Amino acid sequence: MTSNTAETKQAGSGTVRLAANQYGKAENHVVRVYRDSARHSIRDLNVTSQLRGDFELAHTEGDNEHVVATDTQKNTVFAKAKENGIESPEQFLLGLADHFTSNFDWVTGGRWAAEEYGWSRINDHDHSFYKSAPEIRTAVVMRNGDRDIVISGFYDLTVLKTTASGFVGYPKDKYTTLPETEDRILATDIATRWRYNTTDIDYDATYKRVKEIILETFTDHYSYALQHTLYQMAEKVIASVPEIDEIKFSCPNKHHFLYDLERFDIDNPNEVFHAADRPYGLIEATVARADVELDERDWIGIAGFC
Amino acid sequence: MTSNTAETKQAGSGTVRLAANQYGKAENHVVRVYRDSARHSIRDLNVTSQLRGDFELAHTEGDNEHVVATDTQKNTVFAKAKENGIESPEQFLLGLADHFTSNFDWVTGGRWAAEEYGWSRINDHDHSFYKSAPEIRTAVVMRNGDRDIVISGFYDLTVLKTTASGFVGYPKDKYTTLPETEDRILATDIATRWRYNTTDIDYDATYKRVKEIILETFTDHYSYALQHTLYQMAEKVIASVPEIDEIKFSCPNKHHFLYDLERFDIDNPNEVFHAADRPYGLIEATVARADVELDERDWIGIAGFC
Amino acid sequence: MTSNTAETKQAGSGTVRLAANQYGKAENHVVRVYRDSARHSIRDLNVTSQLRGDFELAHTEGDNEHVVATDTQKNTVFAKAKENGIESPEQFLLGLADHFTSNFDWVTGGRWAAEEYGWSRINDHDHSFYKSAPEIRTAVVMRNGDRDIVISGFYDLTVLKTTASGFVGYPKDKYTTLPETEDRILATDIATRWRYNTTDIDYDATYKRVKEIILETFTDHYSYALQHTLYQMAEKVIASVPEIDEIKFSCPNKHHFLYDLERFDIDNPNEVFHAADRPYGLIEATVARADVELDERDWIGIAGFC
Amino acid sequence: MTSNTAETKQAGSGTVRLAANQYGKAENHVVRVYRDSARHSIRDLNVTSQLRGDFELAHTEGDNEHVVATDTQKNTVFAKAKENGIESPEQFLLGLADHFTSNFDWVTGGRWAAEEYGWSRINDHDHSFYKSAPEIRTAVVMRNGDRDIVISGFYDLTVLKTTASGFVGYPKDKYTTLPETEDRILATDIATRWRYNTTDIDYDATYKRVKEIILETFTDHYSYALQHTLYQMAEKVIASVPEIDEIKFSCPNKHHFLYDLERFDIDNPNEVFHAADRPYGLIEATVARADVELDERDWIGIAGFC
Repeated sequence: MTSNTAETKQAGSGTVRLAANQYGKAENHVVRVYRDSARHSIRDLNVTSQLRGDFELAHTEGDNEHVVATDTQKNTVFAKAKENGIESPEQFLLGLADHFTSNFDWVTGGRWAAEEYGWSRINDHDHSFYKSAPEIRTAVVMRNGDRDIVISGFYDLTVLKTTASGFVGYPKDKYTTLPETEDRILATDIATRWRYNTTDIDYDATYKRVKEIILETFTDHYSYALQHTLYQMAEKVIASVPEIDEIKFSCPNKHHFLYDLERFDIDNPNEVFHAADRPYGLIEATVARADVELDERDWIGIAGFC
Repeated sequence: MTSNTAETKQAGSGTVRLAANQYGKAENHVVRVYRDSARHSIRDLNVTSQLRGDFELAHTEGDNEHVVATDTQKNTVFAKAKENGIESPEQFLLGLADHFTSNFDWVTGGRWAAEEYGWSRINDHDHSFYKSAPEIRTAVVMRNGDRDIVISGFYDLTVLKTTASGFVGYPKDKYTTLPETEDRILATDIATRWRYNTTDIDYDATYKRVKEIILETFTDHYSYALQHTLYQMAEKVIASVPEIDEIKFSCPNKHHFLYDLERFDIDNPNEVFHAADRPYGLIEATVARADVELDERDWIGIAGFC
Repeated sequence: MTSNTAETKQAGSGTVRLAANQYGKAENHVVRVYRDSARHSIRDLNVTSQLRGDFELAHTEGDNEHVVATDTQKNTVFAKAKENGIESPEQFLLGLADHFTSNFDWVTGGRWAAEEYGWSRINDHDHSFYKSAPEIRTAVVMRNGDRDIVISGFYDLTVLKTTASGFVGYPKDKYTTLPETEDRILATDIATRWRYNTTDIDYDATYKRVKEIILETFTDHYSYALQHTLYQMAEKVIASVPEIDEIKFSCPNKHHFLYDLERFDIDNPNEVFHAADRPYGLIEATVARADVELDERDWIGIAGFC
Repeated sequence: MTSNTAETKQAGSGTVRLAANQYGKAENHVVRVYRDSARHSIRDLNVTSQLRGDFELAHTEGDNEHVVATDTQKNTVFAKAKENGIESPEQFLLGLADHFTSNFDWVTGGRWAAEEYGWSRINDHDHSFYKSAPEIRTAVVMRNGDRDIVISGFYDLTVLKTTASGFVGYPKDKYTTLPETEDRILATDIATRWRYNTTDIDYDATYKRVKEIILETFTDHYSYALQHTLYQMAEKVIASVPEIDEIKFSCPNKHHFLYDLERFDIDNPNEVFHAADRPYGLIEATVARADVELDERDWIGIAGFC
């Protein structure tokens, strides 16, 4: 979290000072129905609003003069779903950022986040839907004074390939027992977030395109390791989408262990696997456009990794 | 659970007796790859095996002479995934039942259950898949001596209609505050299980058909209450599939409350809703073929409802 | 679920009939504060209310004349928390049963359930508490006409012993690879439910006593298998508490596998274990007072097992 | 994540470059038994090991020459549980950091994390335990070259006070509907992490002391807002423990809404509450020793907040 004016004050005791802080209402689950014609449509978002700015006295003195109530933030989220509509999660969050920073002098920024759940029509019906998206879409807007950071992403897109994956050539020490293999199952839950370098973008179309690139890349090469595959996904996203400067992945290596059936005189040529839960590999990487300098603080608070 | 011979014995103390019991290995997560051609396919099952029979002495005396180790049951599940293959979850579980009851005299029955997770090809790729099914498929086989009960189902199929649903005409007492409405969102997570009257059936094709009937029925009528909708689903399933004698539903009424925006002078004509978590309505019903007598004990232990 | 009058009617189509059914409001999370003196106390319950009776027309015709709204049931739960108080979960549920069956002619029974979360005072403070109970207490009341069944229990009480447990003497077949052991870790999450033969009982005191017996029994013997241990727990509960006729356990065998450190020339004399998640053993048993006849239908719908 | 030498290289394409990255094995669940006397004791840790350093070629070329297998990291965790023992989670993680950075030249740092689950003896038994801790203890060690950062904490310590809490004096706008109150329930799940300025410390004793300070502070004042209470907790921890320079809290305001019973002519003087799930307030703050300069990058990747 970036510094704000509140941090420059000193608490009464002189021993401590308030540093980064934010507060708000989390997980406002708003469903917006568009019913202008007989063919309805919906957006289904879980929205968190958190404000940053001068909240020193609330902490040090219990003086709430600056504390825009989290209940007020909740009401605002639902009101804006009607007033502004939900064109995309990112656009909706930017509208919340505008509202709070323009209406309260001491609110100099904040963090607004959303998850979106994807629905499809049942048999192309006008007003009946089922929850269909395998992944959960995410969006985060962080505003600090004049600067906006918009990060989009998704998680829980589980993918698996039954071959064209191996793991060889790694160092061996006294604790190494893993045998090399040139044919294994590779499976992961893709969690990714990318940072835009502009807000002049069609967020929904770009989201769709990034997801397609990532899925297509998963299929198109022999994987020497999950690192190798994630890097290629990242490279193709940045090469294809000029509005993205940086992308992160945090992906488990979901081990599928070949079950040892030889003990029972049964051959098992990569056919029967035990899908294990824990422990799992965990591969995390950030890939950036080559000529862009990163400010790692930008990412604080928006990811469970890196 | 039905009685077994073990129950007729008396524990040493004379105070108590062992009644229904079963044991085994739960949640064996087996992934079966078919790779006979370049176009691979997979079945992804989470299998639980539990045996019933004469296990009296294990309980009362700590004598494990009859206790087929749960570790052995696990090995068997994985071995049978190769030996028998997985044509359908139901067929696979019937094979496990045959194995255990034919190999151990004192195993007179048991309960075998599976969840199946559905995958689709990524861009029709030969060996790359993503986890796509919105619902989790379930199957249970219960064997008691010569009798098999096969129950199929699914859960977590979330559906929502934005109109054509209301709730009126209910009794009012001093604790009633709910206003009547003729236009609301209806949403639920469908959980259902049905019982077959035969094992001579194409389980995969029938599963697909039942799911289609249920989804289609969700769209095809004005719903006076979730009870009304579930009953119609049940009726159509039984009318259309002669091999099904009985079907159960256990479905939450996932409330979508119209957000009160009038307080802010904003009109909200069924457009902005708060999707609440708890509490929720919970509607559970069994519907049976009219001329079939039910034995409610058949269902013990296979459902979280009724 | 036991039969009710509704089940004897026939649906219009003649093809199907409504069998067992129940509906209501699930997971009403009520916190009741007692503040008659400066020393406050709390009860923290998650309550589900479901009604049974004549609800045929709601299902078959969409006629809600009999449907006591689930919203009304919710209001009633919270109102009764004030009107009746919460002396114990069981007493509270019995009060709900009385209310609904006495106020609506067509409500002939139902199922009322609660979970209770246990809190302790922070440093014996008058009004500050922390959530302290390792287990979740459960209570279920099922009423069918004149008959009440009261079932109490708990789950998620995780216990572990580092020795005095083994597993030997089990049958070996071609799929058996487990080595016998006379010293292993035994660990489980205890889930249990017991049925009272009376409602004239101090539910809180009895709950405390049953839990103590179960914990004490876990420690007091060499365990030949989890079955052996559960049976002894059951036997002692029934021998010690005349008001209990029947008790069930559904307990995972939470495997702690000795980690193979010999591969690294490190001795591991039962010191370093891998606590595995899945698969796990699953041991389920019902133990009854010797001279009591069981009606297995009584248990339908109150347990995830047997 | 801090920069490493790998980041200065350029990927082959010239379009992108690898920035921060780490990988390893997550959630190795190790149970360490001490059984040197008849009175056994246990430590129960869930350990994640992730390495940082020069892993460029694995990403860009699929060359695994530097990739210490995650399976090897797993084996090492279990081996070190025997070789080094588990004196405290922090000491154990520092030992892992030493191992990996001293054995592999290109491993210049990493992130090692653990959760610890607390057990108590059943009736003071020598070798029987139950899982008793209401909170989950956490520890993180981040090493970057010569610099170590050690962060300890816990989460899921749920606390509640039935009075001595209010919320007044906040700004009102057109979306504000919350009434002021001087007497409400205050409840939260405490999640906190603190940073030590030394590794010369008794981690277990300090953990115990910090937890006690936090709990005691929760009880000792009238709370004007959760911000006010968290700040006081932080202030007292830093004032009391000179080895701590910085502490963070991320705490939900778990709303307990007074249930409106007036509609039923029932008085409800702060006695019956609905414990709501979502949305919830979310209050996050960092408090630092007054004269210590913070490097916010130190926290990247170790917390879900700020």
